[in-house]
Amino acid sequence: MAEFQVFDPVSTPETGPERLAALRVEMATRGVQGFLVPRADVHQGEYVAPSDERLAWLTSFTGSAGFCAALMTSAGVFIDGRYRVQVKAQVADCFTPVHWPETQLDEWLCKQLPNGGRIAYDPWLHTASEIDKLAKKLEATGIALVTSDNLIDAIWTDRPKPPMTHATSYPTQLAGKSHDEKRAEIAETMRAKGIDNTILTQPESICWLLNIRGNDVTHVPLVHGFCILQADGHATLYMEAEKAVDIHDHLGRDVVWKPRTAFAEDIASLSGKILVDPVTGPVALRELIDTDNAQIHFEQDPTMLPKACKNDVELAGTREAHLRDGAAMCEFLAWVDTQEAGRFTEIDAVMMLEECRIKTGDLKDISFDTISGAGRNAALPHYRVSTESNRIIKDNEVLLIDSGGQYLDGTTDITRTIPIGEQPQHVKEAFTRVLQGMIAISRVRFPAGLAGRDLDVLARVNLWQAGQDYNHGTGHGVGHYLSVHEGPQRLSRVSHVPLQAGMILSNEPGFYQEGEFGIRIENLIVVRAAPSLDTSTVENMFEFETLTYAPIDRRMIIVDMLTKAERDWINAYHADCRDKIGPRVSDETAVWLRQATAEI
Amino acid sequence: MAEFQVFDPVSTPETGPERLAALRVEMATRGVQGFLVPRADVHQGEYVAPSDERLAWLTSFTGSAGFCAALMTSAGVFIDGRYRVQVKAQVADCFTPVHWPETQLDEWLCKQLPNGGRIAYDPWLHTASEIDKLAKKLEATGIALVTSDNLIDAIWTDRPKPPMTHATSYPTQLAGKSHDEKRAEIAETMRAKGIDNTILTQPESICWLLNIRGNDVTHVPLVHGFCILQADGHATLYMEAEKAVDIHDHLGRDVVWKPRTAFAEDIASLSGKILVDPVTGPVALRELIDTDNAQIHFEQDPTMLPKACKNDVELAGTREAHLRDGAAMCEFLAWVDTQEAGRFTEIDAVMMLEECRIKTGDLKDISFDTISGAGRNAALPHYRVSTESNRIIKDNEVLLIDSGGQYLDGTTDITRTIPIGEQPQHVKEAFTRVLQGMIAISRVRFPAGLAGRDLDVLARVNLWQAGQDYNHGTGHGVGHYLSVHEGPQRLSRVSHVPLQAGMILSNEPGFYQEGEFGIRIENLIVVRAAPSLDTSTVENMFEFETLTYAPIDRRMIIVDMLTKAERDWINAYHADCRDKIGPRVSDETAVWLRQATAEI
Repeated sequence: MAEFQVFDPVSTPETGPERLAALRVEMATRGVQGFLVPRADVHQGEYVAPSDERLAWLTSFTGSAGFCAALMTSAGVFIDGRYRVQVKAQVADCFTPVHWPETQLDEWLCKQLPNGGRIAYDPWLHTASEIDKLAKKLEATGIALVTSDNLIDAIWTDRPKPPMTHATSYPTQLAGKSHDEKRAEIAETMRAKGIDNTILTQPESICWLLNIRGNDVTHVPLVHGFCILQADGHATLYMEAEKAVDIHDHLGRDVVWKPRTAFAEDIASLSGKILVDPVTGPVALRELIDTDNAQIHFEQDPTMLPKACKNDVELAGTREAHLRDGAAMCEFLAWVDTQEAGRFTEIDAVMMLEECRIKTGDLKDISFDTISGAGRNAALPHYRVSTESNRIIKDNEVLLIDSGGQYLDGTTDITRTIPIGEQPQHVKEAFTRVLQGMIAISRVRFPAGLAGRDLDVLARVNLWQAGQDYNHGTGHGVGHYLSVHEGPQRLSRVSHVPLQAGMILSNEPGFYQEGEFGIRIENLIVVRAAPSLDTSTVENMFEFETLTYAPIDRRMIIVDMLTKAERDWINAYHADCRDKIGPRVSDETAVWLRQATAEI
Repeated sequence: MAEFQVFDPVSTPETGPERLAALRVEMATRGVQGFLVPRADVHQGEYVAPSDERLAWLTSFTGSAGFCAALMTSAGVFIDGRYRVQVKAQVADCFTPVHWPETQLDEWLCKQLPNGGRIAYDPWLHTASEIDKLAKKLEATGIALVTSDNLIDAIWTDRPKPPMTHATSYPTQLAGKSHDEKRAEIAETMRAKGIDNTILTQPESICWLLNIRGNDVTHVPLVHGFCILQADGHATLYMEAEKAVDIHDHLGRDVVWKPRTAFAEDIASLSGKILVDPVTGPVALRELIDTDNAQIHFEQDPTMLPKACKNDVELAGTREAHLRDGAAMCEFLAWVDTQEAGRFTEIDAVMMLEECRIKTGDLKDISFDTISGAGRNAALPHYRVSTESNRIIKDNEVLLIDSGGQYLDGTTDITRTIPIGEQPQHVKEAFTRVLQGMIAISRVRFPAGLAGRDLDVLARVNLWQAGQDYNHGTGHGVGHYLSVHEGPQRLSRVSHVPLQAGMILSNEPGFYQEGEFGIRIENLIVVRAAPSLDTSTVENMFEFETLTYAPIDRRMIIVDMLTKAERDWINAYHADCRDKIGPRVSDETAVWLRQATAEI
């Protein structure tokens, strides 16, 4: 058994019709024609506790993004490009998969309800931005949005209890800054804008700000709670008493603890200018704030940028975590090469990789459920192997492994695509094109001020030349012993956030041929100032430092397709892998590593 | 003498102080603390008639974009990246160059007028979008915007008369569609949106819609006027009687002619939903419309997209125009190679190039003043040679020539950078990097739905790797026997307009080392559907067809810096030049062409 990952079939489509019918009874009782069931919990995080898995409980769809709009005679499950294939396999016929964002919720609702209707939602699970946009689009359609209690909670009789793990302090020598310093810095930016109170509802923000960690959701060392930060740097942390027992000393005298139940009441008594993040703050906050005495100010959570721009201590820790993780990856990759095709499975691979990471002695958790897909399963960008889907890894297939580790000093995320036996030419060609995109991002220098959207194209252009592309962003932000998916930075056509020094990103182009095979290659990279060159005329430029070190499979590369610069990059990268990782692996793996990093 | 270009020194900085003083007297008389002097005329076009050259008359700055904010004790001349160097040489000390858009007008005004003030503007020369944005930013600053008559016109005693050229009909066999068809199509889109009247104030839109041309400004075959298009396809054309004499038959019975003076009155009597382009329609229109009977609807001029997506007839004409123009370019380039360094000037080059184009027998005009810059003048992206600035072209310098022709069947625009004698290595390296960017755009295939901003980076990434960049967009839209600068499409970081089949764009990356040298290479390209490939998985993709054929100087290319794909592209392009242009040039030039297009 693996320690951190379970392989039970997660989808039980057969439960869908009965639960949907029960929900419709609740809708009828309340006189509404629909109910929105988001994936999100009150914290709007990517991972939710079992008690908050309302979307999965209702629909059996287990992807990390999506929502259901349940109406009386139809129920749409809205999913993005990553989940087009998965959703078909997971939900019962009573649910209709809807391609989002191509089809917007308002359009779909208008088609389904030509005569209008009342759509209920739980204001704690939706943000102000989300509800305001939807309400605006629904103006004059006859469809009205109304708040209600949560109708899923009303019918989910065996709902699990909320998580109750103990919060722990996170040492300043790993964080690089004490929580006093962090609060003082954020408070200064608040005062500069005349903001009196900031309401924080994202656990990542609160854990980063107060240097605490926990274990309330799988794979992310978070503890759930709320926080109000005042313009003088004082803060109140709202959390169940049993979760906070170990951190009272750590919080010190400037951070007051209160039970979670006091949060709503305290919100109602706030005065002055109050910052709420429109994209992550529940719309319920707006209802609670007393607008006679307080003025709501929608602006991005002020911890997000400072959290995203890692300090030198965080970066040093992250580099070390990646070398440790790279050594574990190499042990794993060397093991794969000793396996006989047809004699091991996707789950075997997950378990061995977890074992390699555990052997480092420092693994706190994996940073997400390992994606281990062979053959046609590799074509599912966010595949999650279960005992039901588990495939034997056969000859002439590729194995796509996307995984990461949570270490106290940093969070990792790496994807490698491994050939099992000989590969068809078109698979190697696709691999090489994906690699070219990944190298283009790794190598680029760019003027300060540019955002992910300005660079995303570089990862795709080689695929485009062959009429190919991939239906996901090129990269996401990554936290420091926090969530492996962290904003605001992204490498994506829709990301306008200027890249800044210290931002960690994934660089993971891919290619997926549905029903056949999938390719993805991923390193983590961090933005840093680019040194001036003899030829330089632009003053402020950035480049990426590579954090991830593990060989990229030479057997998959068609060398003739590479430019000299690309070939030089891969050879230099492999030399670095040899030098940095070589001293950290077993003797057998060191032999494997020398061969795996030989020049091409 | 050249027929279409004049070389008089255009800048007379010494006239600035007196004219500014006179303007300040007018400001004082009217009790305002400032007056805005835009480059634009009422039509918001790039070229303005001499009678509308208010900015140049006041400040002596002759760039094609910019504006002056004249206050009592200071006067800012706002210019973009193209004109940073030029403005310093053109304006007197009483004017302060301001880097725009880095410094916004409202910020500058607030600094200059800390105690507030009244800033006057002529509502016919500013658009609703412009004034609304500025007014919003100036809210609560104590600075108010007020309309007034034009204070420049009040002091410009020897102002030239407005242009009075005769409009001519443009034949359907060149336009590809009759004006009846065009009006019917636009009217259909109006009816679909419930729009009753569309007010057109851009001459390009009116000339395209009604298939007329004229000669009211230099280098663009436009005739000035206004037009109101009704939802039934009927239209009214407002134009001085003497300009319209030759087109009454062509206009037919569904297009009514009225004198230009009737325009304001007719606007005031319109009813229903009225479309005005917020970006090009004068804000004066909003004041005129009778809001008791009419409702103003701000939306992009509905002729812009149909005009931008050239039809097959327009494209066939454009291809032929480019081959004709390419032959003229080759005659010119061959001539340059026979010249002795130190014995010919920038103006000699302009005159010879014009002569080569005139010899085709089909040149109607050049499409803009030829940019002919040698040595350090080549570093001015929009340099315009005058008898004063004219440089002798010396050995070991480059000559940058950016020029185009207006032919009845199409508009051309081409830039080549020609080595005069041996070149330093760093100049050839910069040339090669610029060429790589230009090839990247020429070669790219991309999914439908992408905009110029998604592709712009491809032209820059090779320069970035050397710490270099260029301070202008990669390309602009181009008209069909209309303006060489045409929207809405662009290849630029700020262009969100999805590219569509038939859109013509320039592809002109560059590099400029101030005070030393400049490089630019430009071809025109047109968006077309990309054929499916064996490897294709993305259904709708576009690519660019190259329209411009003239050799790119082989002596400037460092072959080792090119990838195989880039080298293949340049060799294939040169083979096309040889095949397509060879039969059209003189015997001597054919010899030159064979050598200039030899494989690298």
